[in-house]
Amino acid sequence: MTSIAVIGHTATTDPSFSLNDLAGGAGRMDVLCRCVNASLFLSHNLRRDTECTLVLQGKPENMKTIRFSGSSVRSLNPDEKSPAALIKKALAIPCGSEFREAAPGVAVRNAGLSRLLAEGGYAILDEHGTDIRKAGALPPAFLLSDHLSFTPDEEALFAGCPRFSVGPSVLHADHAVIILLNELDRRAAGWS
Amino acid sequence: MTSIAVIGHTATTDPSFSLNDLAGGAGRMDVLCRCVNASLFLSHNLRRDTECTLVLQGKPENMKTIRFSGSSVRSLNPDEKSPAALIKKALAIPCGSEFREAAPGVAVRNAGLSRLLAEGGYAILDEHGTDIRKAGALPPAFLLSDHLSFTPDEEALFAGCPRFSVGPSVLHADHAVIILLNELDRRAAGWS
Repeated sequence: MTSIAVIGHTATTDPSFSLNDLAGGAGRMDVLCRCVNASLFLSHNLRRDTECTLVLQGKPENMKTIRFSGSSVRSLNPDEKSPAALIKKALAIPCGSEFREAAPGVAVRNAGLSRLLAEGGYAILDEHGTDIRKAGALPPAFLLSDHLSFTPDEEALFAGCPRFSVGPSVLHADHAVIILLNELDRRAAGWS
Repeated sequence: MTSIAVIGHTATTDPSFSLNDLAGGAGRMDVLCRCVNASLFLSHNLRRDTECTLVLQGKPENMKTIRFSGSSVRSLNPDEKSPAALIKKALAIPCGSEFREAAPGVAVRNAGLSRLLAEGGYAILDEHGTDIRKAGALPPAFLLSDHLSFTPDEEALFAGCPRFSVGPSVLHADHAVIILLNELDRRAAGWS
C-alpha cells in the first residue's frame, strides 16, 4: 500500500463550494483534486494499492481530513471536477475524529495534520530531500504541500521525518506525485 | 527547446464548446488541457524553453493544430479551464496552413499530424518504446496520444521514428509528459 498525503493550506471545509470555481472560491481545491488523480489513475485503470489523503486547512473549520482509497473508490474520473464532487460529498456529512465513509472509497474525519503524522510512517516530499532515485528503500507513505510552502509549525511537526526530492526542478504537487509513483512502479517491476 | 505534441482524436475543432464540459461535449479536451499544463508548468513558473502542440482531430473540421509556447504564453493558470479558454480563442480565429497567433504564445493552423511529422524530429512516447532512463541522447521532440491508442494510419505515418517509454505502467498522457520532462531536467542538471 502506498499512501500520498497532501496539505491544502487554503482548501475550504465548506461543502457549498462551486465545482466551477475550484481554483478561486474553493481555496485552490483544484490543486488537491489533481493530486488525487495523480495518486490514483493509471491509463484506463486505478491504482488499487494506493490511497490519497487530503488535509484541508481552509475556512470555516480549518481542519478536515479526506481519504480516497484506490481499492474501493467509484465514480472517479480524471478531470478535476470529479474528485471535487466527492470532496463536496465528504464535507457535507457529519463526522467525528474517526474516518466515516461518505461514498465508496471516500472517507472523512474531523482531524488534521498532527493526527495524521502521529499515525506514523510518513516521509516528506520536497525539494530539500534526498533524490528518490539515489535513495535506498523508500517508505510507503509520503506527505507533501500544495502550492504553498510548509509552515514553520508544520515543519516542527515532522522534524524527524526523512525527506525526499523528485528532481532538480521545483514542481507542482501533483507532478511530484507522478514522478514518485513512477519510481515506485519501476522498483516494483525491476526497471530501476 | 523541448517540444511535446499530443493527438486529440476526438477533441472538437468548434470554438463554441463549454469550459464546464471539457470531458464530455468538447471531446476529451480535458486530456489535452492537462497535457498543456504538464508541458509548461513548474512551481510558480513556466518552462520557457518548452512548447506543447495539440493536434485536434474532432468535429467539425477534423484537423487543427494549436501550439502553446512557454516562451511567450500569458494568462495561463494550472487548472484545466485556463488552457481550454485559450484553445477556444485559437479555434475562433480564421487561419490558413501557417501558424497564426491567437493570443500571446498561442498559435493555430489548419493542418494536422502529417504536416507536423513532415517537419521532422519527433520521437514517439508510448509503452512499447525504449526506457527513457536507459536511452542514450534523447531527441528534443516527442509525440504521444491522448486517452486512445494511435490508429493504424497514424502508426504508418511515424513508422520510422524512435520510440520511448517512461516506465512499466501505462499512464495518462499528461502523466507520461511529467516523467519525460523530469528525465530531461535531470540530464540537464547532471542528476541522472
